[in-house]
Amino acid sequence: MNDSRPLGIALIGTEFMGKAHSQAWRNVAAFWPEHPVAMKVLVGQQPEKTREAAARLGWAESGTDWASVINRSDVDIVDICTPGHLHAEIAIAALDAGKHVLTEKPLASTFSDAERMTRAAAAARAHGTRSMVGFNYRRIPALAGARAIVRSGRIGTVRHMRVSFLQDWLADDTTPMSWRLRKEIAGSGVLGDLGSHLVDQVHYLLGEPITTVSGHMRTMVPERPGPEGREAVTVDDAFWATGFTASGVGISLEASRMATGRKAELDIEIYGSTGGIRFGLQRLNELYVLESIGPQEDRGYRQVLFTEPQHPYAGRWWPPGHVLGWENTFTNQAADFLTAIAAGEDPRPSFEDALQVERVLAAIEKSSNSRGQQISVSLEG
Amino acid sequence: MNDSRPLGIALIGTEFMGKAHSQAWRNVAAFWPEHPVAMKVLVGQQPEKTREAAARLGWAESGTDWASVINRSDVDIVDICTPGHLHAEIAIAALDAGKHVLTEKPLASTFSDAERMTRAAAAARAHGTRSMVGFNYRRIPALAGARAIVRSGRIGTVRHMRVSFLQDWLADDTTPMSWRLRKEIAGSGVLGDLGSHLVDQVHYLLGEPITTVSGHMRTMVPERPGPEGREAVTVDDAFWATGFTASGVGISLEASRMATGRKAELDIEIYGSTGGIRFGLQRLNELYVLESIGPQEDRGYRQVLFTEPQHPYAGRWWPPGHVLGWENTFTNQAADFLTAIAAGEDPRPSFEDALQVERVLAAIEKSSNSRGQQISVSLEG
Amino acid sequence: MNDSRPLGIALIGTEFMGKAHSQAWRNVAAFWPEHPVAMKVLVGQQPEKTREAAARLGWAESGTDWASVINRSDVDIVDICTPGHLHAEIAIAALDAGKHVLTEKPLASTFSDAERMTRAAAAARAHGTRSMVGFNYRRIPALAGARAIVRSGRIGTVRHMRVSFLQDWLADDTTPMSWRLRKEIAGSGVLGDLGSHLVDQVHYLLGEPITTVSGHMRTMVPERPGPEGREAVTVDDAFWATGFTASGVGISLEASRMATGRKAELDIEIYGSTGGIRFGLQRLNELYVLESIGPQEDRGYRQVLFTEPQHPYAGRWWPPGHVLGWENTFTNQAADFLTAIAAGEDPRPSFEDALQVERVLAAIEKSSNSRGQQISVSLEG
Amino acid sequence: MNDSRPLGIALIGTEFMGKAHSQAWRNVAAFWPEHPVAMKVLVGQQPEKTREAAARLGWAESGTDWASVINRSDVDIVDICTPGHLHAEIAIAALDAGKHVLTEKPLASTFSDAERMTRAAAAARAHGTRSMVGFNYRRIPALAGARAIVRSGRIGTVRHMRVSFLQDWLADDTTPMSWRLRKEIAGSGVLGDLGSHLVDQVHYLLGEPITTVSGHMRTMVPERPGPEGREAVTVDDAFWATGFTASGVGISLEASRMATGRKAELDIEIYGSTGGIRFGLQRLNELYVLESIGPQEDRGYRQVLFTEPQHPYAGRWWPPGHVLGWENTFTNQAADFLTAIAAGEDPRPSFEDALQVERVLAAIEKSSNSRGQQISVSLEG
Repeated sequence: MNDSRPLGIALIGTEFMGKAHSQAWRNVAAFWPEHPVAMKVLVGQQPEKTREAAARLGWAESGTDWASVINRSDVDIVDICTPGHLHAEIAIAALDAGKHVLTEKPLASTFSDAERMTRAAAAARAHGTRSMVGFNYRRIPALAGARAIVRSGRIGTVRHMRVSFLQDWLADDTTPMSWRLRKEIAGSGVLGDLGSHLVDQVHYLLGEPITTVSGHMRTMVPERPGPEGREAVTVDDAFWATGFTASGVGISLEASRMATGRKAELDIEIYGSTGGIRFGLQRLNELYVLESIGPQEDRGYRQVLFTEPQHPYAGRWWPPGHVLGWENTFTNQAADFLTAIAAGEDPRPSFEDALQVERVLAAIEKSSNSRGQQISVSLEG
Repeated sequence: MNDSRPLGIALIGTEFMGKAHSQAWRNVAAFWPEHPVAMKVLVGQQPEKTREAAARLGWAESGTDWASVINRSDVDIVDICTPGHLHAEIAIAALDAGKHVLTEKPLASTFSDAERMTRAAAAARAHGTRSMVGFNYRRIPALAGARAIVRSGRIGTVRHMRVSFLQDWLADDTTPMSWRLRKEIAGSGVLGDLGSHLVDQVHYLLGEPITTVSGHMRTMVPERPGPEGREAVTVDDAFWATGFTASGVGISLEASRMATGRKAELDIEIYGSTGGIRFGLQRLNELYVLESIGPQEDRGYRQVLFTEPQHPYAGRWWPPGHVLGWENTFTNQAADFLTAIAAGEDPRPSFEDALQVERVLAAIEKSSNSRGQQISVSLEG
Repeated sequence: MNDSRPLGIALIGTEFMGKAHSQAWRNVAAFWPEHPVAMKVLVGQQPEKTREAAARLGWAESGTDWASVINRSDVDIVDICTPGHLHAEIAIAALDAGKHVLTEKPLASTFSDAERMTRAAAAARAHGTRSMVGFNYRRIPALAGARAIVRSGRIGTVRHMRVSFLQDWLADDTTPMSWRLRKEIAGSGVLGDLGSHLVDQVHYLLGEPITTVSGHMRTMVPERPGPEGREAVTVDDAFWATGFTASGVGISLEASRMATGRKAELDIEIYGSTGGIRFGLQRLNELYVLESIGPQEDRGYRQVLFTEPQHPYAGRWWPPGHVLGWENTFTNQAADFLTAIAAGEDPRPSFEDALQVERVLAAIEKSSNSRGQQISVSLEG
Repeated sequence: MNDSRPLGIALIGTEFMGKAHSQAWRNVAAFWPEHPVAMKVLVGQQPEKTREAAARLGWAESGTDWASVINRSDVDIVDICTPGHLHAEIAIAALDAGKHVLTEKPLASTFSDAERMTRAAAAARAHGTRSMVGFNYRRIPALAGARAIVRSGRIGTVRHMRVSFLQDWLADDTTPMSWRLRKEIAGSGVLGDLGSHLVDQVHYLLGEPITTVSGHMRTMVPERPGPEGREAVTVDDAFWATGFTASGVGISLEASRMATGRKAELDIEIYGSTGGIRFGLQRLNELYVLESIGPQEDRGYRQVLFTEPQHPYAGRWWPPGHVLGWENTFTNQAADFLTAIAAGEDPRPSFEDALQVERVLAAIEKSSNSRGQQISVSLEG
């Protein structure tokens, strides 16, 4: 790579996440001018549709052959936004080609793929090739700030954490069948899709992994209308779990796609011996913080708006009080990835981090299959 | 009993609950004038202290011998606010004496006591003697309204329910040891104290019992300073459980005495196929309700203030917008008890209802001792 | 008066406020046992209805002749809850008879009556006879706490204050005519009814009076259906004012009976040079406080639940987290009145304080009649 | 202009608003692909700084001579983000050159400039040249939705409206003097800066202009530290006004730069005869709506999240529940401008609309100089 030119980006995937990542690459240099990028090529399945998307989203070229793209000399970063079952092949090939890789979560659709990817990332790291997984909620200023507060000890020893992710797009039981509800294609349901964010946030915010879990998964609406009659839904649409970390923090995890009226609500609560933190995704600029400051009777959760220049990421954006949206997390994520590459450091969450999330999810599934029996999570390595 | 005179009340217990129940009896006739009562006698352990409390709280007399009091001909109702291990003996004797009995929750400190009490209540019922347990949160207008909404089908088929009760009076690990933290005296910790309210609300709001549970209990601070050095805390200070009802509703239950900054926060969420309900005890006049009315894009949880004359209990109190507090739930409860007695009907929650709550709590404890293994709850009878 | 017996109370007025004050007298000794009272007599207009109310509300006797009641030797306190145009005659007679007087707000229905009452109160004070006006919102723990915070300097120099009181019971323009909408009977509309609370809170919380005002009053629905056809509404149903205190605090005041969906919402905001305070009546246990503590970027309004024993009034009631309602403010008010009598001190708000509120309201009305021209408020004396 | 090529954009101004508008132009085609644009040239004062900004923000070229830029044949749209006193000269020249003009608010720094610009816009309109003013809050989905709700009659006849804009960047009286606090440079203080948004929202949401106003302006901190000692602040830092529309809607307006703890909080409340609307800028994805649907006792404000595909603008962005931020309003604004140009229609708010806002602000200032005397606002034409 040549330090004197912008890093060249190739993006594989044109759908929802492809659109979100495109916006990140299109805007990152306006706010992190020390990291110019060149949006080289967008790769999709259908030539015409991909060409149209590339033009619209700001890519110089389009293509349908990811294998050739990852070997282009003007491409430095491969960003993978495909369905999960394609992650492994592309990521491993790109790492082997010496490209830095950013991949969307979940890391892979099978545990063995995730392990292979993690090994490839470790091997590439030895050559200075970086890899990262797109758990974008780590890039919300308020949650990055929450992590700093926990680590600083300002809320004391953490004892409880509550995380939940509630959606409602399956609440209507006449909503038709889709590929996302078939296990053989989607890999998993709400546990993999939303539960992975929950587990990642626990690991991120507490700085220690979940070591035991006890869980229950359910499919509340077991059949849905398909083009040829009713079909079986083969993934979970809700799960509940209780976890504990090595240090003994008790954690409740819960997610659903049938929580009527909750569109995409990730709620987080952390209770420490001397304070607490609360967060909700629909008001993502706000963090509620309690600390043991002043007389006991004057204490309470205070609403901190994370738009001050001292807050993580916020100083790059707009003046205080001018709130960010969901999409900005992807730009922050791109910036963090570029910053790590420039600094020659390994960005987080690494493939190892994402694999550890998968281990916890696998343990929840195993527990659910054992009527809630508590299961130990294997630790990395 | 003579219909032409006010019912005579005897209250056993002078502490926190005794004070709350005294206020209920002192005020109920002002708002339910069709049910006049006479506050005959307050019974406590210490003569002088009980005499002072009786004068202060509005009782005509005081005494220390509950056994003689329950046989007085001018006493129609015996209200039991003693520590739980005394409930059984007093309640059974009072029922045998033909007195209507209101007892505070939990029903008893042992399961066998609870069963004996339930049998006594059933026997007394045959003679028109009424009995009820003081799960006062059933008397919050917003929760009584929530139950009506669920039963009416306005939120469709219920699929999820989330209940939690968070307190923080043990968050400080220098808070000293007390009798409430000793299992041999208190009977149980947070599971019995707060978990019983949670389970009762599930049964009350859904109208069907929890049939399986999987749970975990923990003592986060296992030792606390006592007068003679550090002592072992022998009850739980937090628990987590996942339950299911016969119809398949998935329920998360969680309670803690160490949720820093949450003083006494009972939160309830119910998600149905076409709507939802949310409630928080610190804002007990408010209920958040979502229904499938109007265009899909216009929907959202609406804040309903339960102070309108059409709302349960509210029409007896103040004009719209004039909010009630925690204490009013006890007056509402007294009114419901008096109304049932006058109507010759059995009030709810009955001793059987409370026994069923105990069965769920026992199953959670058993599950916790079996590393979360799911346990079936025995059903009444 | 004889120190060794409870003070005897006579209450004049049986309607809404009579019911609220009755509850205060019925309960005050349970929470302030150092101030026992005897509920001697309730006075109303109709003998039978008053007798029924007295029995229901806990009064020993009933009567219809206030003049004889205020001369009874067993009556120490006269509590006036009649319509405003009767306040002056009763209060002056009672003070002349040496009885302590608590009167509901507004002080009187005419300014000259208010002045006469204030002179009578000053004269009586010389003989140790106490008088107070029932601005009950001063007795909300959170607002008493807010006053303490302002006075302590914890939010710096106050610059802005916003007060509004929004109701909606006249929003429906088919709501029928009533005596409260006729100026000759009601004296005033929303300005006198709700505006008086707003001005009293400004004076109470800031500790200094409003000295200039500019205002506008409107009758949004000028006619309403009466028994014999449409009738003219002759009082205001909304007003807006901008005021300034002597020290230069800028204040917005606004009230309406037509703010659809707001039942009885008194909102208060105070902005100082280093902090701020926010309050809403529908969540009256909560105060939102910002202070300049810690790093600038960590600051925010914190929710303080005013149920701790150190908070004003709260220690007399229930444990932390057990919220109070609207009615408790009257019990707190009665306790403050009794405490002042026992201490031989003059309680606040005095008749002079209420007269000063009337002066501000009169200036707003005068300004409204002068197209908003700013008017100076005459100061007491 | 040639339909077959993207419209060429020139942006004059490189600071805060220049950055926000650049982002709009950089992203608009990704979400409105039917309106491709070419970011031709960024114009600033300092060559080097402008060159750097152009590169960073995505402009093809940079320049310092706006006069030559507006005559370039490849420029179709001139977007003016300079300080207000330069708006008139640039806008008039650009319109004369046949370029569509988008200018930031306020329209101009003097009333006569605003009138000249409006005349120029009217003349240009005859030739199909479009002009618009950047009141970006009109582009918040929730507020565009609020306007539709008001116009549909769903909240009945509007009677009250409350608008306030609270900031706190001047709360600290040691904050140093700046050019924005000098009237000769800034033109106005909080009235022009924040009050203009408030008045525009009233006109936009109600669809009718304010016709009378009564107001008060204040400079709370009259001196601030400058480089050579204390200097006089010559603009207002707070104002209060009461306005009425022709149909009689009563409106309170209030803004401050000294509301400690409120960063940039535009709050709006609208009360109609059958419903109401509430909005706060810090939670700009949410609208609170009350309508007369269902039984009276079940009503309440419901929280509508404006992220559904049917909501204004929202369908162009992300799936339901994925919230937008402040910056997205500028992209929405650019899209509206491009859509109007393509359709051959005049976009709103027009220069006439902005001039009418200025007339209201001028009347408030005149009223403030007349001790609050109510002033009639001259109507357009």
